[in-house]
Amino acid sequence: MAKPKYSHLSLSLFLIITIITSSPLSLASRPSNFPSSRWAPRFLGKFSSSSPPKQPQPPKQQQQQPKIRYETRYFAQRLDHFSFSDSPRFQQRYLINTEHWVGPQRLGPIFFYCGNEGGIEWFAKNTGFVWEVAPQFGAMILFPEHRYYGESMPYGNKDEAYKNASTLSFLTAEQALADFAVLITELKRNLSAEGCPVVLFGGSYGGMLAAWMRLKYPHIAIGALASSAPILQFEDIVPPETFYDIVSNDFRRESSSCFNTIKESWDALVTEGKKQNGLRQLTKTFHLCRELSSTDDLANWLDSAYSYLAMVNYPYAADFVMPLPGHPIREVCRKIDGCPDGTSTLERIFEGVSIFYNYTGQAKCFELEDESDVGTDGWNWQACTEMVMPMSSSRNASMFQTYDFNLSSFQEECWKDYNVKPRPTWITTEFGGHDIKATLKSFGSNIIFSNGLLDPWSGGSVLQNVSETVIALVTEEGAHHIDLRFSKKEDPEWLVEQRATEIKLIEGWLEKFYQESKSKFDM
Amino acid sequence: MAKPKYSHLSLSLFLIITIITSSPLSLASRPSNFPSSRWAPRFLGKFSSSSPPKQPQPPKQQQQQPKIRYETRYFAQRLDHFSFSDSPRFQQRYLINTEHWVGPQRLGPIFFYCGNEGGIEWFAKNTGFVWEVAPQFGAMILFPEHRYYGESMPYGNKDEAYKNASTLSFLTAEQALADFAVLITELKRNLSAEGCPVVLFGGSYGGMLAAWMRLKYPHIAIGALASSAPILQFEDIVPPETFYDIVSNDFRRESSSCFNTIKESWDALVTEGKKQNGLRQLTKTFHLCRELSSTDDLANWLDSAYSYLAMVNYPYAADFVMPLPGHPIREVCRKIDGCPDGTSTLERIFEGVSIFYNYTGQAKCFELEDESDVGTDGWNWQACTEMVMPMSSSRNASMFQTYDFNLSSFQEECWKDYNVKPRPTWITTEFGGHDIKATLKSFGSNIIFSNGLLDPWSGGSVLQNVSETVIALVTEEGAHHIDLRFSKKEDPEWLVEQRATEIKLIEGWLEKFYQESKSKFDM
Repeated sequence: MAKPKYSHLSLSLFLIITIITSSPLSLASRPSNFPSSRWAPRFLGKFSSSSPPKQPQPPKQQQQQPKIRYETRYFAQRLDHFSFSDSPRFQQRYLINTEHWVGPQRLGPIFFYCGNEGGIEWFAKNTGFVWEVAPQFGAMILFPEHRYYGESMPYGNKDEAYKNASTLSFLTAEQALADFAVLITELKRNLSAEGCPVVLFGGSYGGMLAAWMRLKYPHIAIGALASSAPILQFEDIVPPETFYDIVSNDFRRESSSCFNTIKESWDALVTEGKKQNGLRQLTKTFHLCRELSSTDDLANWLDSAYSYLAMVNYPYAADFVMPLPGHPIREVCRKIDGCPDGTSTLERIFEGVSIFYNYTGQAKCFELEDESDVGTDGWNWQACTEMVMPMSSSRNASMFQTYDFNLSSFQEECWKDYNVKPRPTWITTEFGGHDIKATLKSFGSNIIFSNGLLDPWSGGSVLQNVSETVIALVTEEGAHHIDLRFSKKEDPEWLVEQRATEIKLIEGWLEKFYQESKSKFDM
Repeated sequence: MAKPKYSHLSLSLFLIITIITSSPLSLASRPSNFPSSRWAPRFLGKFSSSSPPKQPQPPKQQQQQPKIRYETRYFAQRLDHFSFSDSPRFQQRYLINTEHWVGPQRLGPIFFYCGNEGGIEWFAKNTGFVWEVAPQFGAMILFPEHRYYGESMPYGNKDEAYKNASTLSFLTAEQALADFAVLITELKRNLSAEGCPVVLFGGSYGGMLAAWMRLKYPHIAIGALASSAPILQFEDIVPPETFYDIVSNDFRRESSSCFNTIKESWDALVTEGKKQNGLRQLTKTFHLCRELSSTDDLANWLDSAYSYLAMVNYPYAADFVMPLPGHPIREVCRKIDGCPDGTSTLERIFEGVSIFYNYTGQAKCFELEDESDVGTDGWNWQACTEMVMPMSSSRNASMFQTYDFNLSSFQEECWKDYNVKPRPTWITTEFGGHDIKATLKSFGSNIIFSNGLLDPWSGGSVLQNVSETVIALVTEEGAHHIDLRFSKKEDPEWLVEQRATEIKLIEGWLEKFYQESKSKFDM
């Protein structure tokens, strides 16, 4: 057995780290075997919380990311936009930068990032594209926070906001969009900037919000760049196997033996777990801080690592959800494949996921998911209410355990955990999705759906042009909303081109808007 | 003084009728002088309730309107679509007719009337256009009822539903639209008719709902005929004087002396009311059943008559809100102008409004508004929450008392009456309105805004073509959604043409839809 890599490092650097994984199974009840239901993987929820879990410090050179400047403000929002019940207001946090804005007289644009499931500062930091392009457009920058995340807590604090199904009941995408609509409208009124065009940006769930906002509030925003926005990952619009098939393909394209090792590992895990002292042995093999009580916990931990690796499979070193090298899946497979002959499957797996969980090498041992956290995470609530994204794992194409999404079990678990009944058909009723091309072709305009095909969420997004103004930008080598990140000197050519296209399209929207404003004034 | 007309009729026919007027001031506190605030006139709310007030029976020939056939069904709706709170469901009534529907295999269209503020049967009866054209389209007909009206009462019954601001809080346009969206989606699923195109219809507030539904749910309906839909009657989008100026013009175009008599009458009324025994004299002059306690009540009653007369100023006899002759304003003015010399202004006024309140001549005396009704009317709640339509009356152009809309007083009155704070900018935030041409030009498609310029609500609607598919059909001689009424042999040529144009446009939407469906199948 190969020595674990970390043992080569100086002990003085060691930390006991608690990496709270965003397991797809985080809420599922797990008796002793594999779970009866599979939760949709979170986007990046946990990692983007405003108080991030302790993480290993990234190496110095990775920390050097461009500085962004903004002012933090708060806006009193209604808790419930869609009824006239007497509910308390809450303070929505937003970040604002006006230093490059050319102002209301010159109809300076407003670049508006649709905050998603986490503290807004984290998204601001990780959405360099907006900061980089705003100056050339003379644009104001706004980063409003999504309700129930970060500091934007109803009922005064997170404990109260997340207390029960009743207090959580206003954590919905529609309410968040209405927050955005009211915030923009009021802000523009206060600045006498009613005539200024608003351009929406968003990545991941934020990208879904940006696309939906353009669809539902076309009077408020002239266009949307929706990056990695899986607005079709609902009901039966795309096959439920899509997500895990893409993750699996990301591994297979690097190495089929790596793919096979992972595919075999699940059985190996179960077999090992059933042995006498098996759980203790697994605890040792995977350097867990606490003794493993179920192989499911470990399976979830691994599942989660692979899914995230696919999302952040960027061509350069980055510290998005974790400090990682460039092409991290390649590195993971290199580890898995590169172990000396005779290394067991599970030992190879450990070597591989250490790239994800311990790239900096500072971890002494690993904590699996913190069970006490159940019920306090916003995205899990959203997944249990409207964001019902069925996920299955196919027998052949997937390297994961075979699994068929089961709505009934899913609903039971939501009831058990939150006392809430999911509404799996609501999102498509409210926002559409079925036959979206026909709808958007004769309606809608000015939306960019950008996707990288390495990103497992790309399968649930819009990958073909719908019309002249509803555009799909697809990159073969892109991962989760890489286009929204700060530019880097390591950026591959296709990424530079993609961003240039996006800028050109946004310029087109604005030019048309200004032409029409002008002809209106001329009238 | 001319003998009141009714006294010529046989006493045996007399009825004491209670005509609950839909006064613009119905909720305002009225001390002894003219009101401090002016409420938006209702559309046709009161008259369209499912249990209509006793009204004089119309003459036999007017009662003969075409029969319509439908089945009445109920659908369990969520009370709150936009939160996950545990609120009780309610039964939404809807009328359905499938006898001409060509069915799901042939993608038979679904004609969907957006029920507005009243019992749905009344709207079904008064929307003959849908019934007449559905057969030629092979269309199913659906008339869903608006929540909180007719039988579609949350909390089991009207008393409970209208109990307080909390129970009423879900009476909003957005919730009603979501009801429609869920109903259509579920119904289509049950009939395996997911592929069938839906065309929306609506008049007045129902027309606003139809237009908004097309804007907000383009994936659910392929187009909307929004007749007399004042979607721009909010904030400062159109001048607040618009409504009363149009009513006044309707009278002036018939007779400037009639206009002048009415304009003078308000002062005459106040002067008379201040005299000793003045109120008693007014009670007599206007044949009121109970002694008048304030001239305001009478002013409201008159105001209301003029406003409704303008809305239903149809070219033929009709029994929409009241049994009335064709060109009723012409008839009113003929009465006002035709009194013998020496007839007082107020006596002329009484003769005039008798055309509205007593065309059948069966009324013995008149009840002014029933004050006990305050607080139980759905439209007043809606006006006090989101449907804040500022209404003023200009000094010169209007024949009404001069009045400037005052938002603060309006809000105070809403607070007093309903314990609710109006949100005057919400409708435009949610649905747009400012600069609607620019928005709809680059977004949106397949909406007909039809308006008759005699209709005082026309001033708040869309009167110019926005694009090739967002069309304004404007008729000089039309009144409130006359195009949606049953055709009649008396229909003027312009009305026949207008309906033919509407049919042609709807055919165009459907043809395009079928072409696209076909090319999809061919792919």
